[in-house]
Amino acid sequence: MASLVYLMRRWREKIRSSTPLHVVGLAEILAIFGLIASLIYLLSFFGIAFVQSVVSSNDEEEDFLPHSKTTAPSQCSLLGPSPTEVPSEKLPEEDEEIVSMVLAGKMPSYLLESKLGDCRRAAGIRRVVLTRMTGRNLEGLPLDGFDYESILGQCCELPIGYVQLPVGIAGPLVLDGRQYYVPMATTEGCLVASTNRGCKAIAESGGAISMVLRDGMTRAPAVRFPSARRAAELKAFVESPENFDTLSVIFNRSSRFARLQGVHCAIAGRNLYMRFTCSTGDAMGMNMVSKGVQNVLDFLQNDFPDMDVITISGNFCSDKKPAAVNWIEGRGKSVVCEAVIKEEVVKRVLKTNVQSLVELNTIKNLAGSAVAGSLGGFNAHASNIVSAIFIATGQDPAQNVESSHCITMLEGINDGRDLHISVTMPSIEVGTVGGGTQLASQAACLDLLGVKGSNVSTPGANARLLATVVAGGVLAGELSLLSAQAAGHLVKSHMKYNRSTKDITN
Amino acid sequence: MASLVYLMRRWREKIRSSTPLHVVGLAEILAIFGLIASLIYLLSFFGIAFVQSVVSSNDEEEDFLPHSKTTAPSQCSLLGPSPTEVPSEKLPEEDEEIVSMVLAGKMPSYLLESKLGDCRRAAGIRRVVLTRMTGRNLEGLPLDGFDYESILGQCCELPIGYVQLPVGIAGPLVLDGRQYYVPMATTEGCLVASTNRGCKAIAESGGAISMVLRDGMTRAPAVRFPSARRAAELKAFVESPENFDTLSVIFNRSSRFARLQGVHCAIAGRNLYMRFTCSTGDAMGMNMVSKGVQNVLDFLQNDFPDMDVITISGNFCSDKKPAAVNWIEGRGKSVVCEAVIKEEVVKRVLKTNVQSLVELNTIKNLAGSAVAGSLGGFNAHASNIVSAIFIATGQDPAQNVESSHCITMLEGINDGRDLHISVTMPSIEVGTVGGGTQLASQAACLDLLGVKGSNVSTPGANARLLATVVAGGVLAGELSLLSAQAAGHLVKSHMKYNRSTKDITN
Amino acid sequence: MASLVYLMRRWREKIRSSTPLHVVGLAEILAIFGLIASLIYLLSFFGIAFVQSVVSSNDEEEDFLPHSKTTAPSQCSLLGPSPTEVPSEKLPEEDEEIVSMVLAGKMPSYLLESKLGDCRRAAGIRRVVLTRMTGRNLEGLPLDGFDYESILGQCCELPIGYVQLPVGIAGPLVLDGRQYYVPMATTEGCLVASTNRGCKAIAESGGAISMVLRDGMTRAPAVRFPSARRAAELKAFVESPENFDTLSVIFNRSSRFARLQGVHCAIAGRNLYMRFTCSTGDAMGMNMVSKGVQNVLDFLQNDFPDMDVITISGNFCSDKKPAAVNWIEGRGKSVVCEAVIKEEVVKRVLKTNVQSLVELNTIKNLAGSAVAGSLGGFNAHASNIVSAIFIATGQDPAQNVESSHCITMLEGINDGRDLHISVTMPSIEVGTVGGGTQLASQAACLDLLGVKGSNVSTPGANARLLATVVAGGVLAGELSLLSAQAAGHLVKSHMKYNRSTKDITN
Amino acid sequence: MASLVYLMRRWREKIRSSTPLHVVGLAEILAIFGLIASLIYLLSFFGIAFVQSVVSSNDEEEDFLPHSKTTAPSQCSLLGPSPTEVPSEKLPEEDEEIVSMVLAGKMPSYLLESKLGDCRRAAGIRRVVLTRMTGRNLEGLPLDGFDYESILGQCCELPIGYVQLPVGIAGPLVLDGRQYYVPMATTEGCLVASTNRGCKAIAESGGAISMVLRDGMTRAPAVRFPSARRAAELKAFVESPENFDTLSVIFNRSSRFARLQGVHCAIAGRNLYMRFTCSTGDAMGMNMVSKGVQNVLDFLQNDFPDMDVITISGNFCSDKKPAAVNWIEGRGKSVVCEAVIKEEVVKRVLKTNVQSLVELNTIKNLAGSAVAGSLGGFNAHASNIVSAIFIATGQDPAQNVESSHCITMLEGINDGRDLHISVTMPSIEVGTVGGGTQLASQAACLDLLGVKGSNVSTPGANARLLATVVAGGVLAGELSLLSAQAAGHLVKSHMKYNRSTKDITN
Repeated sequence: MASLVYLMRRWREKIRSSTPLHVVGLAEILAIFGLIASLIYLLSFFGIAFVQSVVSSNDEEEDFLPHSKTTAPSQCSLLGPSPTEVPSEKLPEEDEEIVSMVLAGKMPSYLLESKLGDCRRAAGIRRVVLTRMTGRNLEGLPLDGFDYESILGQCCELPIGYVQLPVGIAGPLVLDGRQYYVPMATTEGCLVASTNRGCKAIAESGGAISMVLRDGMTRAPAVRFPSARRAAELKAFVESPENFDTLSVIFNRSSRFARLQGVHCAIAGRNLYMRFTCSTGDAMGMNMVSKGVQNVLDFLQNDFPDMDVITISGNFCSDKKPAAVNWIEGRGKSVVCEAVIKEEVVKRVLKTNVQSLVELNTIKNLAGSAVAGSLGGFNAHASNIVSAIFIATGQDPAQNVESSHCITMLEGINDGRDLHISVTMPSIEVGTVGGGTQLASQAACLDLLGVKGSNVSTPGANARLLATVVAGGVLAGELSLLSAQAAGHLVKSHMKYNRSTKDITN
Repeated sequence: MASLVYLMRRWREKIRSSTPLHVVGLAEILAIFGLIASLIYLLSFFGIAFVQSVVSSNDEEEDFLPHSKTTAPSQCSLLGPSPTEVPSEKLPEEDEEIVSMVLAGKMPSYLLESKLGDCRRAAGIRRVVLTRMTGRNLEGLPLDGFDYESILGQCCELPIGYVQLPVGIAGPLVLDGRQYYVPMATTEGCLVASTNRGCKAIAESGGAISMVLRDGMTRAPAVRFPSARRAAELKAFVESPENFDTLSVIFNRSSRFARLQGVHCAIAGRNLYMRFTCSTGDAMGMNMVSKGVQNVLDFLQNDFPDMDVITISGNFCSDKKPAAVNWIEGRGKSVVCEAVIKEEVVKRVLKTNVQSLVELNTIKNLAGSAVAGSLGGFNAHASNIVSAIFIATGQDPAQNVESSHCITMLEGINDGRDLHISVTMPSIEVGTVGGGTQLASQAACLDLLGVKGSNVSTPGANARLLATVVAGGVLAGELSLLSAQAAGHLVKSHMKYNRSTKDITN
Repeated sequence: MASLVYLMRRWREKIRSSTPLHVVGLAEILAIFGLIASLIYLLSFFGIAFVQSVVSSNDEEEDFLPHSKTTAPSQCSLLGPSPTEVPSEKLPEEDEEIVSMVLAGKMPSYLLESKLGDCRRAAGIRRVVLTRMTGRNLEGLPLDGFDYESILGQCCELPIGYVQLPVGIAGPLVLDGRQYYVPMATTEGCLVASTNRGCKAIAESGGAISMVLRDGMTRAPAVRFPSARRAAELKAFVESPENFDTLSVIFNRSSRFARLQGVHCAIAGRNLYMRFTCSTGDAMGMNMVSKGVQNVLDFLQNDFPDMDVITISGNFCSDKKPAAVNWIEGRGKSVVCEAVIKEEVVKRVLKTNVQSLVELNTIKNLAGSAVAGSLGGFNAHASNIVSAIFIATGQDPAQNVESSHCITMLEGINDGRDLHISVTMPSIEVGTVGGGTQLASQAACLDLLGVKGSNVSTPGANARLLATVVAGGVLAGELSLLSAQAAGHLVKSHMKYNRSTKDITN
Repeated sequence: MASLVYLMRRWREKIRSSTPLHVVGLAEILAIFGLIASLIYLLSFFGIAFVQSVVSSNDEEEDFLPHSKTTAPSQCSLLGPSPTEVPSEKLPEEDEEIVSMVLAGKMPSYLLESKLGDCRRAAGIRRVVLTRMTGRNLEGLPLDGFDYESILGQCCELPIGYVQLPVGIAGPLVLDGRQYYVPMATTEGCLVASTNRGCKAIAESGGAISMVLRDGMTRAPAVRFPSARRAAELKAFVESPENFDTLSVIFNRSSRFARLQGVHCAIAGRNLYMRFTCSTGDAMGMNMVSKGVQNVLDFLQNDFPDMDVITISGNFCSDKKPAAVNWIEGRGKSVVCEAVIKEEVVKRVLKTNVQSLVELNTIKNLAGSAVAGSLGGFNAHASNIVSAIFIATGQDPAQNVESSHCITMLEGINDGRDLHISVTMPSIEVGTVGGGTQLASQAACLDLLGVKGSNVSTPGANARLLATVVAGGVLAGELSLLSAQAAGHLVKSHMKYNRSTKDITN
């Protein structure tokens, strides 16, 4: 426990010293939260085992068991453990001893951080243990140059290092009269270059315009009643305008940023799914809304004692799954972004013409996706841009499933001479505080866009601005890829490998 | 051009020296590909502009224009460029000069790599330029410690640094009688720990079993004819068994690993979408299949001169979009993974019981997703595990949209005492060569799983094995999260912040 | 024109005489509507041609042209017109003359009703013309025994007779404490018998319970603006609570039953889809809501002069198409219906057991439909019952596409001994006035259910009651078919033909 | 039993006498089938109860119980049974006696046909019973003029009369060089007239062209194994080309028309869904394919004894549900139909212009349906025409759910002057033998189209031709409705009621 307290102190100091003055208030609160969070995290998730491990040490593998004896059934052979290949990393004697203990199953790997009070050292020891167990060389995976305290109890457990994703810059994206240099973390060739070309075409045509149509995170618990009639009664209760104020007060206790916007219920027999929507300030907001929902459930249990809470998340939310409810009603930020590309720019920068682009969009993005039975995938490659920006800015890349829902529309205007292009994206789930946004490299990317942390004067403005940049990036990406395809360039740019083979063969 | 050649030589040497002996043959080929690819890349994508820039230098911004004069309309103000905040990075005089040229628009940013012949230096200069232009501090985004040559013409353009994603280890995942330690790059708290718990429950029950039901990448060009009748004729032609051998020979020229498996056509009036499926060895295979498709299109053009190729990708593929065609017919690897969790393990490790889990799965993952109008999203959080493993192992995170299609089934067996759990995932798109798999940190994660690079004896075996590990990870993740929800633990583990607030308030 | 007036007078009298006293007020109004409707119908739809035909008779085929010279291109041969097969129907000389005129293209077929002033005679002549033209024998299609005046300008143009659909009776369906004998018009063997069996099981278990969760018809015009920004402005305007009263007043002018409930907008770039929902009394309500929408569009045009009305129906409605928006938000009546079937009844009446039924439902209706990529089709055969009742009661069978959206849930209760079964149907589109409900045979079926015509005391109550009967019928149908499948009876009952073959073979 | 034999003899004679010479062979076979079918039907469906009722008469309500004492729980009141309103129908004394027995629960209603040996008389008595029980007047529902023997054991049980649906004629539809007069049974005003106008525009432009791309009915049983591994093994077995011949021989025994085309398997854990596709001659084919599937299941059970057949229909079929599997892979007939409408015809007949139509189609049928989350509903009102023709020609109207899947494409050709319009419909499920096609009025409508009964020379040709007529009708319907909307006519034509009201008000 002492080491835990030590960790917290260090972390607190780190947060303090790195926080610019104008967000100190919030940073303080976050720091306090963080401290308690760390404690609760270790107590709750690593759980009873951890608590028990203090009381009695013979039960330590209770929850986590990366390498205990029981997990290695006799029929399981280890992966090619040729010890000769393993680099003989020299460790301080003290660390060697800990490695031996972990290897012998005497110390659970997940306890390293708290036992050692040094996250970097814990990760290093875990890594050596892994290397010894598997006989695999982890040399390419960097260990140093990362602040492991920053993820403790927050972002990632059982760390052994970090992967590096190169960040390219597309821009300036001229959006709503301002310029943005969009950071994209990707390993897909041409993506940044292509988006950059789209930005150029947009900029040379006067820029893009965006609108945030809606801003609300959702969570839908599933509850079960003895009968559908009862489920219908609760539905009527929570959807009634008369009860909205009451529910709001209860819900909003979860955070000073949470504001309940509404509840939409669906029924499947006696099971009721209540989709709560709330604004969440600059946070992506899943935790905030979950907490608000829990508050409401606790409250409802009194008046509906026969309500059986099946789960806080009944998939009508719907998180990280392609679902029509998000496509139709939105989740996170609903954004539309548009631009008019001048005929001359279409020709000079994009090497194609308006009619070809419009036809391509109809045949590919509308009819093609319709034929494929797509749900909200009426675009060329929105997911590419969404995930690249998400990773660069510390968003949850698992949420790009619905965040990249997008319908791209292209229409000829001004008698078919110029091009009107738009992307409509109903479910962009982003935040500028919490989660991965707090890591140094990701925070730098947010800062580059001017949306780091909480917007003090207008809570939520940073997250909304980030959402518009995502949509703007998608607009640029769609414009450029469609142009490349319209010009028959796709194969050329992507086929470099095989082209060369062919040349060689010839 | 000299600098380009220099770069290639360096790169070649790097590849050679770092390649273990037993894959030299392939590595050599890849190296040659890589060299030519670099050249073709710079020639094709940066394109005519680049070639032109040698001939005539007054047209350099042709394709890319990150900061030309024309892109900054007078109405656009820069983002808060308070120069005082900018750290005054000291650069060598030579570099300062280049920075000035780029800032002045005299040298396009995208030419830095080829002009300087030093990718690290190019990224550094680009970064300084960006800092000066925006007045933003990029300090938190690391620049050093990364091999920028490795991404040139391959993975990312216009780089300025890299983001770091911590990698946690879940495992051992006991799968098909072997043990895997699964690297997960994530910033979502609890994810690794929770997956780890699922692995433990699986391991203590004897391990999971997986099957690869199908392995084929797809690409569907859209072509248009004067009439639907003609489109139907081509459909009949390419789907006819008699023509399969001919088409195969032509298609398979694209790569020695490409093997055409079939063509499935859809029609929308006079537009024909031909979904080609082929095996692609250990590559994810998009480029390979695209090239094969291009070969076939070239061939078909002779017999169908009225065929108008609208696009090489008509969205019936369907890449990076939620689409029923992938859900139903599969894309990449179709995998099912199962395990039987013993009653005792459900209680001790997962803190819940079989009946609660089965009911939860029915109400949440089946009925809840049905009510939400989900497409292939009949799971709890497959996307979380898929994207974490994808990022760690250099896959394309934009493809997690369809790669995380998953139906999770839970059933009581042995008179309801034990739990049968399975995940069925028809569209896992992974490879172990090409793209991000070549970066050092990602390659290390692949190596940890024993699937780095091409499988020489059985091409494709590495990629398929990786797909089963993804499915196995999802199995563990589903098992653990569902258990947490069944036990009412979700709120507790995720609500740490707000809980603490509440406690404080009280 | 005289004959038209004559027709109207006859029709009016018919309506008057057949109308029970207590609905005279409404009947009167409907009659007046009907009269004017007939006139407007003939003027508007048969259109300018008709008006022109009074003024100048040389332009008569303007809109309709069943057999004009120009429609028979020389390359088109008639369908096997072997005159010997044609029955030589003897017609009065006067009628023969008219037949000759129509055959010669001197009188358009569509004018027969108005020219002759006798709908039965017009249909008969049209039929003879058709017989002579095609050489086909229409003997099996009855002509007499039907009131052709009742469909004039209302239900069907260019009639030549009528088809007969047998009506079977299932019941009593015990629903909400009352008994209903459900008329089903079908030609599918076993359907009525099977539904009847389901009714029996429900009745013997104490009956079913239903709830109407929502009642509102929708229509969504599509309008286009010069920019997405403008589209977003209109979206904000119509969705604003402040403007609801204004819009309501304008909308509700369309009918004394129309009550605007809300507007939900979706955007695709600069195109705006506004889904208006309103209650419509006992009418299915499509016309009513369309008229209200038109009122609002006329009003909005003043404030949004750049609004371009593309169509009154932009498919976000969504009528007669499978669409998630109906599945998630409902259309028409949203109904849930449930019953608890006792263990003993499951065994005795349904010949199966609870556990088998629950497993079957999970594997077939939930997982099977999920695997098939179904949208709102999580049931066994709801469409069968819906269409049978729709046809019997004069509903629009084309609307069974979305009206049969249904999720069927089966769960064991009371420790798994008894069965809880429910159907949730969000989009049952029914009415008891207007359309086919006015025809004699269909009106009789409505009367059998006690829901004929408008409910005077509680407008809308009849239509809602009908919707619950539809859901109750579906509940019975699902219960019985699932039981048959669970008991392996499906093959036996449906396979009669082939079974017999097999027997013979043996 | 004697009366049953009597019925069969009568029916056999009826079929014989009414069968044209050239199909005598098939008719004979069908008649024999029919006879045995009747027997088996009554034995199997009315079931054990019926057999038992011969042996012991104290168990008669076993399966059906329309009005037994137990079905009327005391809390259920009858629907307003005011006896004074009931018309006192005079029955022959003998019939009165039977009515009394049925009312008293001494004779089950479903046994009337077999007991009396006179189907018309049975229906009449059932009707009187119903009238007396409910106090409702069924006067409007015709009883006479229908051959009740024709539906016995085939189409409808427990009949009490029939509903009448008026049949209008649209045409000539010029399709593939021939003229068709399309019978449409509908009660929706304007539908026939509008389709007729579309036919005219098509005819004046030279006619439409259709292609049948695919013809195969499907059925997908669901089977469960102890493990997913075993399910995967069966999947591999049935999908293996090597086993196709064996499976075909077994499958095709079900009928001399059945020809297995392929099997497509989907897995959800240990549950396997095998979608069998086969050609079915001129029958819609559900029974045929079901029987073939049963044959295969029986065969497979030997080699896969651990296979547990959950259901013959696991919803991956997918019948009467909106499901992507049908949209993407087709079910029944897959048809595309196209026409080029000349500029002059667009203006003169359709009162609009090409550009407006193309824009409307993009915004409404493509983008609008995309926004609505539609599955295969990218059309204006295909369901209207499909259901009208289905009902007229004796198809199963419940199948219009998937039969009306349709994507409508409009494109300007010849420099945008002329209009290319097409409808692509992958799942038209029709037959010309069996089911409702055998009823007199429906058979007459089939005969009008020249597709009555089986095509002797080319089995299946009649059903395929019918499918093309359906698609041609949809093409005409789409063309006309889109034109009406493009011309702003929709409101005018549909709004007659309210318009008139408005005029009056003014």
